Amino acid sequence: MLKNSLGRELPEYIEGYGKVRPYQGAFVEAEKSSQRAAARIPRSAKRGQSKAVSLEEALDRIGLRDGMTVSFHHHLRNGDRVTNLVMEAIARRGVKDIHLAPSGLFACHEPLVPLIEDGTITQISVSTFGAGPVAQAISAGKLQKPAILRTHGGRPRAIENGELHIDVAFVAAPSCDAQGNMNGSHGPNACGCLAYSYADVRHADWVVAVTDNLVEYPCCPVEISEDLVDYVVQVDSIGDPAGIVSGAMKVTTDPARLAVAQRAADLLDQAGYIREGMSFQTGAGGISLAVASKIRDKMLEKEIRGSFGVGGIHGYFVKMLEEGLLRTLWDVQCFDAEAIRSIAQDPRHIIMSASQYANPENKGCVVNQLDIMILGGFEVDTDFNLNVITGSNGVIMSASGGNADTAAGSKISVVVSNLMKKGPRCLIKKAVTTVTTPGETVDAVVTDKGIAINPRRTDLLEALKDSGLPLVDIRDLQKLGEELGGIEDHPQFGERIVAVAEYRDGTVTDVVRQVL
Amino acid sequence: MLKNSLGRELPEYIEGYGKVRPYQGAFVEAEKSSQRAAARIPRSAKRGQSKAVSLEEALDRIGLRDGMTVSFHHHLRNGDRVTNLVMEAIARRGVKDIHLAPSGLFACHEPLVPLIEDGTITQISVSTFGAGPVAQAISAGKLQKPAILRTHGGRPRAIENGELHIDVAFVAAPSCDAQGNMNGSHGPNACGCLAYSYADVRHADWVVAVTDNLVEYPCCPVEISEDLVDYVVQVDSIGDPAGIVSGAMKVTTDPARLAVAQRAADLLDQAGYIREGMSFQTGAGGISLAVASKIRDKMLEKEIRGSFGVGGIHGYFVKMLEEGLLRTLWDVQCFDAEAIRSIAQDPRHIIMSASQYANPENKGCVVNQLDIMILGGFEVDTDFNLNVITGSNGVIMSASGGNADTAAGSKISVVVSNLMKKGPRCLIKKAVTTVTTPGETVDAVVTDKGIAINPRRTDLLEALKDSGLPLVDIRDLQKLGEELGGIEDHPQFGERIVAVAEYRDGTVTDVVRQVL
Repeated sequence: MLKNSLGRELPEYIEGYGKVRPYQGAFVEAEKSSQRAAARIPRSAKRGQSKAVSLEEALDRIGLRDGMTVSFHHHLRNGDRVTNLVMEAIARRGVKDIHLAPSGLFACHEPLVPLIEDGTITQISVSTFGAGPVAQAISAGKLQKPAILRTHGGRPRAIENGELHIDVAFVAAPSCDAQGNMNGSHGPNACGCLAYSYADVRHADWVVAVTDNLVEYPCCPVEISEDLVDYVVQVDSIGDPAGIVSGAMKVTTDPARLAVAQRAADLLDQAGYIREGMSFQTGAGGISLAVASKIRDKMLEKEIRGSFGVGGIHGYFVKMLEEGLLRTLWDVQCFDAEAIRSIAQDPRHIIMSASQYANPENKGCVVNQLDIMILGGFEVDTDFNLNVITGSNGVIMSASGGNADTAAGSKISVVVSNLMKKGPRCLIKKAVTTVTTPGETVDAVVTDKGIAINPRRTDLLEALKDSGLPLVDIRDLQKLGEELGGIEDHPQFGERIVAVAEYRDGTVTDVVRQVL
Repeated sequence: MLKNSLGRELPEYIEGYGKVRPYQGAFVEAEKSSQRAAARIPRSAKRGQSKAVSLEEALDRIGLRDGMTVSFHHHLRNGDRVTNLVMEAIARRGVKDIHLAPSGLFACHEPLVPLIEDGTITQISVSTFGAGPVAQAISAGKLQKPAILRTHGGRPRAIENGELHIDVAFVAAPSCDAQGNMNGSHGPNACGCLAYSYADVRHADWVVAVTDNLVEYPCCPVEISEDLVDYVVQVDSIGDPAGIVSGAMKVTTDPARLAVAQRAADLLDQAGYIREGMSFQTGAGGISLAVASKIRDKMLEKEIRGSFGVGGIHGYFVKMLEEGLLRTLWDVQCFDAEAIRSIAQDPRHIIMSASQYANPENKGCVVNQLDIMILGGFEVDTDFNLNVITGSNGVIMSASGGNADTAAGSKISVVVSNLMKKGPRCLIKKAVTTVTTPGETVDAVVTDKGIAINPRRTDLLEALKDSGLPLVDIRDLQKLGEELGGIEDHPQFGERIVAVAEYRDGTVTDVVRQVL
């Protein structure tokens, strides 16, 4: 067994995964030179031949077979129909041992569970996960090989350097022409952009566009271009609009949560981060949007303008762009209808690849320019390590997404939450179930019961010493949780490793074991 | 010696170039599978470190040394200051044996001649060439190794598959931020787009942006993104606006030339190419624009709308876009101020990479979707082979550019010219000085003395047999030229090979020898 620098014990080798590189620090691996993988360019369509074929014909021509790795992107979110459609077609052919490597999976992918059970799918790699049947099946030990949970930056890193070789990338395309020029911003099932698929498209042997909106050549705008696409498959529907966009996201109205959000904004202001040219990212949860709303209040009050909002983009960022409070938006994924509307028409709303967003191994990523990150998370430990993968029952609920990437890149990363959550369970534990985001990259935890600053941030502690903010030791918050009756969960895990949590650089922060 | 399928004798091996693959037909090599080169990702700027350095500092950090290959792009055309600036800095360091591999060189690059003479530059590869001192120096045998003249599609093919490995790509950036996000469409020296540099940027070991317009992060729009850029160098001026854009291009007013243009439009119409959804490309010369103007008249008369204009984009195409006669423009380079204005604001004016434009080895290029191509050229032979490289005195005047690419891809390619040109010299020769574009891809030659259709195009001959158009045998046009007193040039060539003319697939159509 190995022990990584987070104190987690890991096997040196995991069957079905390979040799384990233990996590040794957030910025160790990123200093090394590397090389991109050499992509194959198969001769697919000859000159004058149409690329528009049926799904079956595409699978025939590719020679889809046992053991291949196929990928998808998750911009259609919980409305995606393409992954199920293609995987069911693969299963009907009797193909087995597929490595399914989409950027994300959601509850709508329940039809994949029988394909896991019958060995059509034996491995899964993702960088974002919606809680639901597939995640539960993995936790229950149904997948033959361990799932690999990467970060949003770690996935394109692994694709670009060849760690994750994709045989066939399928791209759900809201608009596409018969040569494969496509975009995500137009069409009846517009999802905004297709940015998580860019690395796939450049590095997969084969690229197949799947569209329900075949348009006249050339499709305009061109988000992914024909020189990278082998086949175009037309289907009835790529998605369910109701699942593609989340409902209109609203700032929480709960006074207690609003108060925590206000406290977070006060912390950021007093520490000097609310300033001209600032940038920030928040998730789309109620409390995250509440922090965004409080930051907006401060910006209006101070008459300052920020440079960019980044990440999955939601209507609240669009509003700030249109108000002139943010000069630009960096978008890797649209969360809601407002974001999709904006990306289709506003040139200040810029698409970036997932590699540009967060890959630590390229020549520079946007998260490194980010000032403020409001982090989500299920659990925090007294070393500030974050768990965004497993719930308190030990079952996989999510994957890292951009959490570890933005925590590492941003100038200040803050977890904002009530101390006591449903159960009651305390946010802060002596040890988290699964380490996703190393504590060395998490700067503060803001709760209704006080603000804990990471002791590594002596600069922050100094800046805030006379602020009047209720600074507390994180260990005291943990003890307070016990006193307030926080339940300690003790999920029963077996020995079997069902998932490997990779840091953005490909080292392992933790493993997830089967829930008995 | 080898003989290629064009009947040209070639050595099997050329010192300083390597093994010769003889041209065997326009579509032979394009059927093979291939592999992209694996790009290196050096660790340049560490997190938090600025990429903005002086040119000297960038050269130091890169470790620029003898024998390296450096590249530039030619969108600043005859106003470019960056190539000279960087090459002179390299020469000052005493570095020798540089392979200079820009997409194009113009008369403004005269200061490179002394660097050729002193061995700083020993090899040059380009895909477009303006007549002038550098081309003359090559023809005079001053360059140590043979120049490699590629097509606009052949260049990105060679970069992508590793035939042309670039150590350092310099990108002249009309707008750029300190992280390397840049565009060609904004700024005091806007040139439209930077599309010829995209292959360089993805495959070079090192990428250096050179800008005179450093803007706030993030630069918007983002044409080339920070994840691909190592350093950003600020200079006083990247170019001379007067040289960046050609003067306003005008349709010829010469009645004889207008009559030839009308004849070309009549041919295209009667052969069925002027139709709803049609696409076309013309150069920006007076007679080419005259053909565009006659095509426009036909489109107005027939009340049809085209799908796209493509290529180097000029104001005439912009006008047709804005009139609604073309639905989109595919742009790889802006020729004039109108094109630059349009690309900065009109989303129907789409940028494509040079690979997407014309690379025969990727998964599909735009020239393969092109209906009509109006070709330029210095000489045509009786096999319809075109010479766009050497003038009648044997001196290099240009390079293939998109000529061979579009001839191969388009449904009909037409040379339009008066039969007798200045001298007087006849357009049509028994043999051209240098074969650039194989006759099997050239469909018609339209002159004031008659229209010659390539006998391979039996379909065209059939379609036009009752058209009333003056169809003639190309050999009769050649003889007529002799009768009209056309001068036969006999330039004196030495044995030494000074340039190799590569077809788009990397095979050799011809070599250019030293002019004595």
